[in-house]
Amino acid sequence: MLENKENSRTSLSDFGEFKLIEHLTKQVELHNSSTVKGVGDDCAVLDYKDKQTLVTTDLLIEGVHFDLSYMPLKHLGYKSVMVNLSDVYAMNGIAKQITVSIAVSNRFTLEALEELYAGIILACKTYNVDLVGGDTTSSTKGMLISITAIGEVKPEDVVYRNGAKPNDLLVVSGDLGGAYLGLQVLEREKQVFQVNPNSQPDLEPYNYLVERQLKPEARKDIVKLLKILEVKPTAMIDISDGLSSEILHICKQSDVGCNLYEDKIPLDQQVISTCEEFNLNSTTVALSGGEDYELLFTISQKDYPKIKGNPNLTVIGHIADKTEGVNLITRANQKIELTAQGWNALK
Amino acid sequence: MLENKENSRTSLSDFGEFKLIEHLTKQVELHNSSTVKGVGDDCAVLDYKDKQTLVTTDLLIEGVHFDLSYMPLKHLGYKSVMVNLSDVYAMNGIAKQITVSIAVSNRFTLEALEELYAGIILACKTYNVDLVGGDTTSSTKGMLISITAIGEVKPEDVVYRNGAKPNDLLVVSGDLGGAYLGLQVLEREKQVFQVNPNSQPDLEPYNYLVERQLKPEARKDIVKLLKILEVKPTAMIDISDGLSSEILHICKQSDVGCNLYEDKIPLDQQVISTCEEFNLNSTTVALSGGEDYELLFTISQKDYPKIKGNPNLTVIGHIADKTEGVNLITRANQKIELTAQGWNALK
Repeated sequence: MLENKENSRTSLSDFGEFKLIEHLTKQVELHNSSTVKGVGDDCAVLDYKDKQTLVTTDLLIEGVHFDLSYMPLKHLGYKSVMVNLSDVYAMNGIAKQITVSIAVSNRFTLEALEELYAGIILACKTYNVDLVGGDTTSSTKGMLISITAIGEVKPEDVVYRNGAKPNDLLVVSGDLGGAYLGLQVLEREKQVFQVNPNSQPDLEPYNYLVERQLKPEARKDIVKLLKILEVKPTAMIDISDGLSSEILHICKQSDVGCNLYEDKIPLDQQVISTCEEFNLNSTTVALSGGEDYELLFTISQKDYPKIKGNPNLTVIGHIADKTEGVNLITRANQKIELTAQGWNALK
Repeated sequence: MLENKENSRTSLSDFGEFKLIEHLTKQVELHNSSTVKGVGDDCAVLDYKDKQTLVTTDLLIEGVHFDLSYMPLKHLGYKSVMVNLSDVYAMNGIAKQITVSIAVSNRFTLEALEELYAGIILACKTYNVDLVGGDTTSSTKGMLISITAIGEVKPEDVVYRNGAKPNDLLVVSGDLGGAYLGLQVLEREKQVFQVNPNSQPDLEPYNYLVERQLKPEARKDIVKLLKILEVKPTAMIDISDGLSSEILHICKQSDVGCNLYEDKIPLDQQVISTCEEFNLNSTTVALSGGEDYELLFTISQKDYPKIKGNPNLTVIGHIADKTEGVNLITRANQKIELTAQGWNALK
């Protein structure tokens, strides 16, 4: 590159709304045959033949859901897409399209929006999703991102939250608590930086945690793995608010109880060591930490041999009759009732 | 009702997010067979057999798109839905589902959100649309509403912006400029009220204009009318940013020119009289006023007998070769090039 882009700053007021959308979406490529028409008309046009269409939407607001002092804009764009795709995978479907609406105050430049879109477009490419529409407008304060994801699933494959049966096994993908601890590490560095702007943070010991917070991946691979293993979950949800909250959702909607075993909850070594350093209980972090975007599902016991020993999947408990309640069985073999603690409960 | 609801005020912090969504959506009824599953899982599930799916989204922000000092919350909810449905009708489709994401600061009460939802639910009922999902979160400032509408259309019926051909007729539904003038009237009353809070506004002479601003209706009836008349437009768009901007969109995407006749632009009597009172040019208001949510479309000349004399439709010009440019032919028979003035151009 011959020009120095470091110092280029283009005010958004130099662009009209239509020109801005055209500029930001010009790199958008379409990947899916179900996308008949993308950006550029009143609506996108999609074509699903014998599949069912899935729709989900999420709203992310600066100062509530993200902090731009440690969240690079490209990562924010990527993560905003992940949050939505994760909901499609949680229905056992495959995401195909997204629409993106963004509002920004005049403190943001064109280059800032380009960075955000670079992350959105990278996520679309990586997950084979088409960006098909959206809205760009000004806000009176800060940035907000509203994304709607659309996916498809065969009617016989769709998995709701309400199908868990007593004796089903409770299974989770990956490991838990990392994203929340990544946030704690970043918050601490921000405070250190505010006191001493010359400090050099060493984030290396926390690299996994920081990546879980800044660049989470939605578990499309798990949906594909389950298909290969010929396992159809009886209920499924993604872990956005913390394991505890998601288990309660499945149990409430399936009208069942559950026993979750503390010693089975999968934790990364960095989660364990960083919990010690921050004087936090790792089980509490896994139960209430949120933002892990793993999949939590229930399977019939007869499917256990198919998933046994798979490094991506951990059996953490089993579904029980409703009268048993929803419980955590501690390492000391105590039974404690699980309560709905969302991500905010720890703050 | 035995209780006095006038003075009831419930803080949103008394509700958790899940309980709030449950509370606000408990009156939601589903109307469409294509809605397999609505609110309450990771995604809504929709089923379109041999139809194409339409998706559109819009973001409305307090202080940018609406002013709560004269916009009642119920009307705001209704209008937010109309803005999105209008885009589906502009593709010659029928809207079937919406998702609604709302962020509010802590100055709003539960009763305020209930009012907003009452308007959203009324719009859904009136237009036979299912509310199937969404997100409710807190904002650091003000209120914002992000709606995504989903609709269906037979592949052979879909109308894009890019199909206008030279000699096609340019047609508009309803009349133009009313919504913008309604806003001017309301802004004036707001200023009068700020000076003298005891003043009694008489909005009766402006009732049509105020209604066009506060409670617009999307033109589903025109999509149905065109089907009955057996007219398939060659291009179509809804008028959200003003006639001028929308004509330019059709001409750019269809790669054609256009002649628009000033004396043909349909204006209500209240638009004409209020323009005189405000010392505004009624043509400028119609061209740049925006928010009318009428449909603008082009038809083949052979279809003219089918629409001739219909009180809902007015021929306002014709499509020309690209080399002729995009022009307004004035009452004095002067040719003036149309420029892209959005709604903001008048502010």
